[in-house]
Amino acid sequence: MSGVDVIARLVAAAESRARDGLGRRLRTIANGDPTHVIVDGRRLLNFSSNDYLGLAGHPALVAALKQAAGEHGVGATAASLVCGHRRPHAELEEALADWTGRDRALLFSTGYAANVGVMQALLAAGDCCVQDRLNHASLIDGARLAGCALRRYPHADVEAARRQLALCEDGGAMLVSDGVFSMDGDIAPLAGLASCAAEMEATLMVDDAHGLGVLGAEGAGSVVEAGLDASQVPVLMATLGKALGTAGAFVAGDGDFITALAQFARSHVYSTAPPPALAAAALAAVSIARREQWRRERLAALVEHFRNGAQAMDLPLLPSRTPIQPLLLGGAERTVAVSTALERDGFLVVAIRPPTVPAGRARLRITLTAAHDFGDVDKLLRALAKAMRDNGGP
Amino acid sequence: MSGVDVIARLVAAAESRARDGLGRRLRTIANGDPTHVIVDGRRLLNFSSNDYLGLAGHPALVAALKQAAGEHGVGATAASLVCGHRRPHAELEEALADWTGRDRALLFSTGYAANVGVMQALLAAGDCCVQDRLNHASLIDGARLAGCALRRYPHADVEAARRQLALCEDGGAMLVSDGVFSMDGDIAPLAGLASCAAEMEATLMVDDAHGLGVLGAEGAGSVVEAGLDASQVPVLMATLGKALGTAGAFVAGDGDFITALAQFARSHVYSTAPPPALAAAALAAVSIARREQWRRERLAALVEHFRNGAQAMDLPLLPSRTPIQPLLLGGAERTVAVSTALERDGFLVVAIRPPTVPAGRARLRITLTAAHDFGDVDKLLRALAKAMRDNGGP
Ligand SMILES: Cc1ncc(COP(=O)(O)O)c(C=O)c1O
Ligand SMILES: Cc1ncc(COP(=O)(O)O)c(C=O)c1O
Repeated sequence: MSGVDVIARLVAAAESRARDGLGRRLRTIANGDPTHVIVDGRRLLNFSSNDYLGLAGHPALVAALKQAAGEHGVGATAASLVCGHRRPHAELEEALADWTGRDRALLFSTGYAANVGVMQALLAAGDCCVQDRLNHASLIDGARLAGCALRRYPHADVEAARRQLALCEDGGAMLVSDGVFSMDGDIAPLAGLASCAAEMEATLMVDDAHGLGVLGAEGAGSVVEAGLDASQVPVLMATLGKALGTAGAFVAGDGDFITALAQFARSHVYSTAPPPALAAAALAAVSIARREQWRRERLAALVEHFRNGAQAMDLPLLPSRTPIQPLLLGGAERTVAVSTALERDGFLVVAIRPPTVPAGRARLRITLTAAHDFGDVDKLLRALAKAMRDNGGP
Repeated sequence: MSGVDVIARLVAAAESRARDGLGRRLRTIANGDPTHVIVDGRRLLNFSSNDYLGLAGHPALVAALKQAAGEHGVGATAASLVCGHRRPHAELEEALADWTGRDRALLFSTGYAANVGVMQALLAAGDCCVQDRLNHASLIDGARLAGCALRRYPHADVEAARRQLALCEDGGAMLVSDGVFSMDGDIAPLAGLASCAAEMEATLMVDDAHGLGVLGAEGAGSVVEAGLDASQVPVLMATLGKALGTAGAFVAGDGDFITALAQFARSHVYSTAPPPALAAAALAAVSIARREQWRRERLAALVEHFRNGAQAMDLPLLPSRTPIQPLLLGGAERTVAVSTALERDGFLVVAIRPPTVPAGRARLRITLTAAHDFGDVDKLLRALAKAMRDNGGP
């Protein structure tokens, strides 16, 4: 008999968060166009999506989804190992392996599922997982679920990672990092991490959710850009819900590893396969993302244009050359005030606050997409200048 | 420095499983029709899908998917709390809450994500989670991820559940059960569990993945069938990838609970929202599933027909009145042999072996759907008789 009501406790935690000005609410968004969303009846220029290449609404993806839905229906009707693994899944896995230069790939319904699945399969009590302090929440949860020791090193600090690995006991050791950090936009020191992992006999895993499609030759990601291959980064994970404009994720690696993973990753074995039509849409996205280099070039040009403008205005930009361009404002209240002012002016730029980022590091996470044009960026810069001025200056 | 190669260790585990005859492989399935799949070029009558109402390929679902994809594109482009929560998600959440008689519902991309998300939000170290020994893997993982104590009671044994709850310490306590057990097809003793939870001041959660759409008035699920409401089962979870023929899942409950959950369930906060078009397809499925009672009636008639036939043949059926009709064969080898013989004869009936089920409890998990007809069932019964005869008798 406990007497503690777990629901009341959760509700109280949410209320306390709201009192601290950190409450968040679900807002329903109506359809817009590639660069706009409609919120509370108002059309806003969107700088908060992860659709970096502007593919989420691309006619080829929509057509592939429709065509495959006509052929395969909607749901996969079972887990992959039962009878849920359909031709579009197999084709997509091959395309992803080919793109990332790996033997094979295994699909998951989400990046969250991929990360907890692969880490639980690879690690257990007695093992050690060393992670960048700014790694994505799903990587932290993967280590927790695996039941291994979890050590976190200061952001992007390879020497600290090495020291943490040196403290690992006799079991297996993994070194895990985001390729591109989701809330900061900077790129991990991948070459350094790879040498460190090799030297310390740890297995390196990179979560390239925000690098795939955006960085490297043909958009193959941060690992390719860093000149590393499957022997140096044997566990590569990336998602389909960001630059690829769809949903889902995959882990890529050696054939025997992926074969084993398909049987041991619980979030894969014990979960319905994603809809085949979604895999078909993602396959169309891979093909466009590989081929249409102009999307990456345009994105890079927009990033440069934005950074030049922001720097001229002395805006507190974090160092980033990816489409994630965070404006570090510090306090949650001020960040919300600037975000609200921008929304009043016609822009959606969501405030990112603790616990998603560390206390005192609240920010506007501005994201650019190849669907934006230079005029959109100029408009945002002007609105930012005004919103910042009205809220305590840059 | 560890020297243990975590990938080599995983590969070795898979090889050892294969040596024990428990290896599983991904087989790619081509499109068939509502009752058939094509495996290795052969058209098989499918008795392994979870598409209980025959909705996965329903034209209304496909049409809703296509229409919404035209309007919203494919991916949601961000997590719900950022800008991923679109009108179809909101409409689906309302429809699910209404159907299950709850204030509100929160969507997740999969049932796996919903279970780990809600349990991690509600439970922590110092709490206690009491679960049926045959609960789904994702519920076990939810408790592990939460870091609470996990106690498992013998299948469907309410008294044992009470004893386990009595052993819980001072923290919060949850009692968690599948509504319909995924590999056995039987229904949990929900009324007994509800009294037990009330008496022991524990919060009851039911995972109705296999009950929603199939049981209860308007298919509202096992909880409604048992005559229980939101005060008795405050945490209701169910999936969209089974009877609803799409993908995803939800947690339904009181408004303030769901509001808090949306902010604290890490698999929701830190994961891209599911594609809006998928939510639109699921909304179409909810409407058909509620309205078309004939699907449940037909399914019940098929179940009865199958059980009568199987009993006349003395087949080792587990007690179940749901569309999950397991034939308990015991040894993994024999189960695979019967499954293989059936496949040779034109039927897909997947063998379920350890670790998905306990050692010595391998089975054919036969599932029926409203898309089957009586002739299909008769064919299966004849094939089963033959396959069993050729493999050691019933
Ligand atoms: C670095 C990183 N990893 C994993 C994920 C999870 O992927 P998904 O959104 O597909 O669950 C995200 C984003 O959500 C991410 O930013
Ligand atoms: C009882 C139960 N809960 C949860 C799940 C997980 O749901 P999903 O397949 O959507 O991940 C399943 C099936 O896969 C299940 O059978």
